Amino acid sequence: MRSKANNDNATTSTSPSLRIVVVNTVIQSEDELHEDAQAQLARSRALRIGLLQAGYNIIAVIPGDMYMSERIAQLQPDMIIIDAESDSRDVLEHMVMLTRDAPRPIVLFTEDGSQTNMAAAMEAGVSAYVVAGLQSERIKPVLDVAMARFNADQKLRSELSDTKAKLQERKTIERAKGLLMERHHLSENEAYQKMRKQAMEKNLKLVDLAQRMLDVADLLGG
Amino acid sequence: MRSKANNDNATTSTSPSLRIVVVNTVIQSEDELHEDAQAQLARSRALRIGLLQAGYNIIAVIPGDMYMSERIAQLQPDMIIIDAESDSRDVLEHMVMLTRDAPRPIVLFTEDGSQTNMAAAMEAGVSAYVVAGLQSERIKPVLDVAMARFNADQKLRSELSDTKAKLQERKTIERAKGLLMERHHLSENEAYQKMRKQAMEKNLKLVDLAQRMLDVADLLGG
Repeated sequence: MRSKANNDNATTSTSPSLRIVVVNTVIQSEDELHEDAQAQLARSRALRIGLLQAGYNIIAVIPGDMYMSERIAQLQPDMIIIDAESDSRDVLEHMVMLTRDAPRPIVLFTEDGSQTNMAAAMEAGVSAYVVAGLQSERIKPVLDVAMARFNADQKLRSELSDTKAKLQERKTIERAKGLLMERHHLSENEAYQKMRKQAMEKNLKLVDLAQRMLDVADLLGG
Repeated sequence: MRSKANNDNATTSTSPSLRIVVVNTVIQSEDELHEDAQAQLARSRALRIGLLQAGYNIIAVIPGDMYMSERIAQLQPDMIIIDAESDSRDVLEHMVMLTRDAPRPIVLFTEDGSQTNMAAAMEAGVSAYVVAGLQSERIKPVLDVAMARFNADQKLRSELSDTKAKLQERKTIERAKGLLMERHHLSENEAYQKMRKQAMEKNLKLVDLAQRMLDVADLLGG
């Protein structure tokens, strides 16, 4: 329930040893390439050339299909770069899934300047959203900023999930303590000390003991 | 103690009516301009030209001095753009203060690609950190992304501060309830109902009643 920040990525600098997976959602069909598609393909190539020239370690280029999540889970990259076509809703949906399972810095290159999609991408945990092409010499700073953003974001998210977990634990412990005070006519402190002693004896965390107490009380019909 | 997201800025799109303050930390001294300084001044001018060409409403250009925070408080801009010289530590320190008092989207344009400063900027709440110059046609997407980022970030930060406040309230209420159970030999539910009744009668929030109970208990020597 409690998600931890991925400390493997705790450095802000992107080094050439960074393992990058490029997700290419631009469909390459040989037939009837109209002008827009050709421009998109050229941009897509330019992005990969830029990454290679900046010396990054591209471990795979995969299509943005239904196997994307599975492949990324297998490849375990340090960063994901998505080269998205104009309508990137499908990719965003997959990204939400990716981010939930294992947070990783995601950089989205797109032509899509729509406000709705930007907001959705931020919510989905995208570390950088780059609209329109990028000169190859600016790729490294963009990736560095994305990494710094990802780390700051993870810190905030992990603080939030820790605080939520603490609140939940507190509720559980207080409920169990209340139960004990009521049943055995103990003072708050007496009930607390009793629970602490029991938890130490059974080598349990206080919250786990409390949960067991509540489970048993439920079972015995409160 | 509880910080609220600034809902005035709840739109992700940046419109020309957006009130922008540019903080210019590049020192303009007429004497002995060496090449670096001249390049920096040219870049600084190009940024302002780009903003103006994109149709943005620049309500003020102010220096990054000790009066910066005060001036921004007076100007109440929708977005702050910082045109930072290479060493931007001072500006970052001021920014931390600005962000604490009143969260606003901050876009930092800088030549400083140092990892430490990037990380510090993210922590300080910078919505976009743009290293190296930017073509004027890319200014709008960058500002749009910064706004989307700011809103997503505010949502997360406000969720965090709400959860922290809830945890704190819960501790206060539980402590007061425990006191009542102990002193009047009440069950948990009886103590809770008594507190709720009292709070309603006195037109107080439960947490405020609980705080008063604890204050009085402290005063009377527990």
